[in-house]
Amino acid sequence: MALIVQKYGGTSVATVAHLDNVARKIIATREKGHDVVVVVSAMGHETDRLDDLARQVGVTPETLREVDVLLSTGEQVTTALLSMVLVNQGCRARSYTGGQVKILTDSSHTKARILDIECERLQAGLDSGVVAIVAGFQGVDEQGRITTLGRGGSDTTAVALAAALGADECQIYTDVDGVYTTDPRVVDSARCLERLTFEEMLELASLGSGVLHTRAVEFASKYKVPIRVLSSFNDSKGTLITSEDDSGMEQPIISGIAFTRDEAKLTVMGVKDIPGIASKILGPISDANIEVDMIVQNVAADMSTDFTFTVSRNDYDQALLVLKNVATQIDAREISGDNKIAKVSLVGVGMRSHAGVATKMFRTLASESINIQMISTSEIKISVVIDEKYLELAVRALHAAFELE
Amino acid sequence: MALIVQKYGGTSVATVAHLDNVARKIIATREKGHDVVVVVSAMGHETDRLDDLARQVGVTPETLREVDVLLSTGEQVTTALLSMVLVNQGCRARSYTGGQVKILTDSSHTKARILDIECERLQAGLDSGVVAIVAGFQGVDEQGRITTLGRGGSDTTAVALAAALGADECQIYTDVDGVYTTDPRVVDSARCLERLTFEEMLELASLGSGVLHTRAVEFASKYKVPIRVLSSFNDSKGTLITSEDDSGMEQPIISGIAFTRDEAKLTVMGVKDIPGIASKILGPISDANIEVDMIVQNVAADMSTDFTFTVSRNDYDQALLVLKNVATQIDAREISGDNKIAKVSLVGVGMRSHAGVATKMFRTLASESINIQMISTSEIKISVVIDEKYLELAVRALHAAFELE
Repeated sequence: MALIVQKYGGTSVATVAHLDNVARKIIATREKGHDVVVVVSAMGHETDRLDDLARQVGVTPETLREVDVLLSTGEQVTTALLSMVLVNQGCRARSYTGGQVKILTDSSHTKARILDIECERLQAGLDSGVVAIVAGFQGVDEQGRITTLGRGGSDTTAVALAAALGADECQIYTDVDGVYTTDPRVVDSARCLERLTFEEMLELASLGSGVLHTRAVEFASKYKVPIRVLSSFNDSKGTLITSEDDSGMEQPIISGIAFTRDEAKLTVMGVKDIPGIASKILGPISDANIEVDMIVQNVAADMSTDFTFTVSRNDYDQALLVLKNVATQIDAREISGDNKIAKVSLVGVGMRSHAGVATKMFRTLASESINIQMISTSEIKISVVIDEKYLELAVRALHAAFELE
Repeated sequence: MALIVQKYGGTSVATVAHLDNVARKIIATREKGHDVVVVVSAMGHETDRLDDLARQVGVTPETLREVDVLLSTGEQVTTALLSMVLVNQGCRARSYTGGQVKILTDSSHTKARILDIECERLQAGLDSGVVAIVAGFQGVDEQGRITTLGRGGSDTTAVALAAALGADECQIYTDVDGVYTTDPRVVDSARCLERLTFEEMLELASLGSGVLHTRAVEFASKYKVPIRVLSSFNDSKGTLITSEDDSGMEQPIISGIAFTRDEAKLTVMGVKDIPGIASKILGPISDANIEVDMIVQNVAADMSTDFTFTVSRNDYDQALLVLKNVATQIDAREISGDNKIAKVSLVGVGMRSHAGVATKMFRTLASESINIQMISTSEIKISVVIDEKYLELAVRALHAAFELE
């Protein structure tokens, strides 16, 4: 007998009809003799509906506290309805709001962080034989005010509960079968991974695989909670994500290929190679609330260098405007940019101990006559920026070259 | 400086646009220097929407606990949005769920009774200068589970809070100007009453005036909380409802005329005049979940009597069926019925000390050639059953005769 935490997201609980399917999965887990804690998101477009009500009234920093009171009702509705479905099918179940559990957070409304989880009431419920249905995405602060956790909040609730309860596994149900070697819409032969490390998942998640929120993965990694990403619409085994040490198997060199379209790059040319120049360029960019992704600066030649970074394509025009201002101030030679680029990244813990991954990547791209515009590496990731029009070609070629089929 | 509890019902908070009007009234009260606690219902058709979700899933005695978790979100949404509107208009406000207050109830889900209200947190909020916006209709039981109070719940919440906080007045905002001498749709010259006693309000409410729930009036009467019924759509003074002793004025003889259509009467004729016969007739009726309103039995002649009672017209056919069975068992002579009747009631505490009210009522009806089919009296009420087609005529004639214009 194990303790399993299961999280069902918005698409898994889209309508009342979907709840029957979720109940079936919960009851199946229960019948294997496991204790089950379920974390649910708001149904279908409920959060959008509540967001729209808030916007009609006017969201300001002063009203964020009440926005949380409003938004938290979405998950509460799901907990009640799912509990009813379970009870009607003869399975004892009970709903819990974040406050009832209680999930203690700081007071950063709409983006609160979990500080502590009191497990007594939940554990008492489990001990009495009920399935606990917990509202995701919400908590209460020390004053007893309702808070919400922001994006990816329900994933984080599930992982935090699993950590606090010492659960054996945290199952994240989504609308995909698990984590793939790359996007199956681009590469037909993309394969669902059996297992993955937290680090790999972090690189894949932040690069846009989008099945699991970065914050939840970080949390799971910190508390060593095994996560399984799987589909709520079939009975496949999904992808198990654990710390590297948990796996006795030899790691494959590359686990997956992530990519993002909608990138843009900006280059400041002829920048003086003196201390503080990078912050003089990026300071105004971040002041303008533009997020920077890759940053590349090569060694200087003739006391001057070129400084390049990428931003989301939506921010390209504004970033260019900011840079033109900056260029004058720092006496740079020229500004150039390109908003038709894409980023492709190889991710894998095996990379650490295998030389030649980069070489093989660059050779593969060269053999398809794809020019590499920027390169950036981390311990378990290599990213390149290429012309957007070659994106699919690059991903397919790399997927084949690294034998991910 | 006074402490005012204000309650805004579903029609007063029907849409986000309505909330501006409610905020205006709250701020006006605040600007007079009063502390304000506001109780709100769910917006517009929100409760219907949630009810529909519950029905889709299946409401059973076992799921009522979760129905309460579901329904309670409706009022929570209103508290959040109204608080946001107030804050955006520069008025400090804070929302409270029933559990946050906390409003302690028994565990009779969907029809819980309030046991106690802890005022500390609410009072602390008021002391710090905020307007407290409390979700009506809900509480928590001793296990911390969410409960709802059933029909008229928000009125009850408002009165109970006013009692617990020692408020100076409990204002119930509705879509009418106050309590009228009779229905203005029937009598053009019907007049909004300035004041009324709890007892009169009880008789008027239960007879269908429908502006204030009986349960809330009983509560107010018990704890002597002055209630003011008034419109959220204009600035009229409304109707003040207090215990009789509070009024120095001489009471008018009659305060109002209530009436109900949609009644039906049933008579069992030739019933033996022996103990227990009434329960033999009414037992099977109540077993069939039919509510009985008036019951009239006259003194016996020749050892037998006629037994008459009224029911809602919807229940007429079923009641007749039940009675036919009963008649055989108790050896009654005959069953008769009429589903085209109406009830008219005069209500007024002044009746106690003034003889002749009944005489004047009967004479007025006789002068219009209206036949009285049944009569029933209480200390402050006289009700008669008449042919439905004379209802408007009777109400207008009585309204004029008792000088209610």
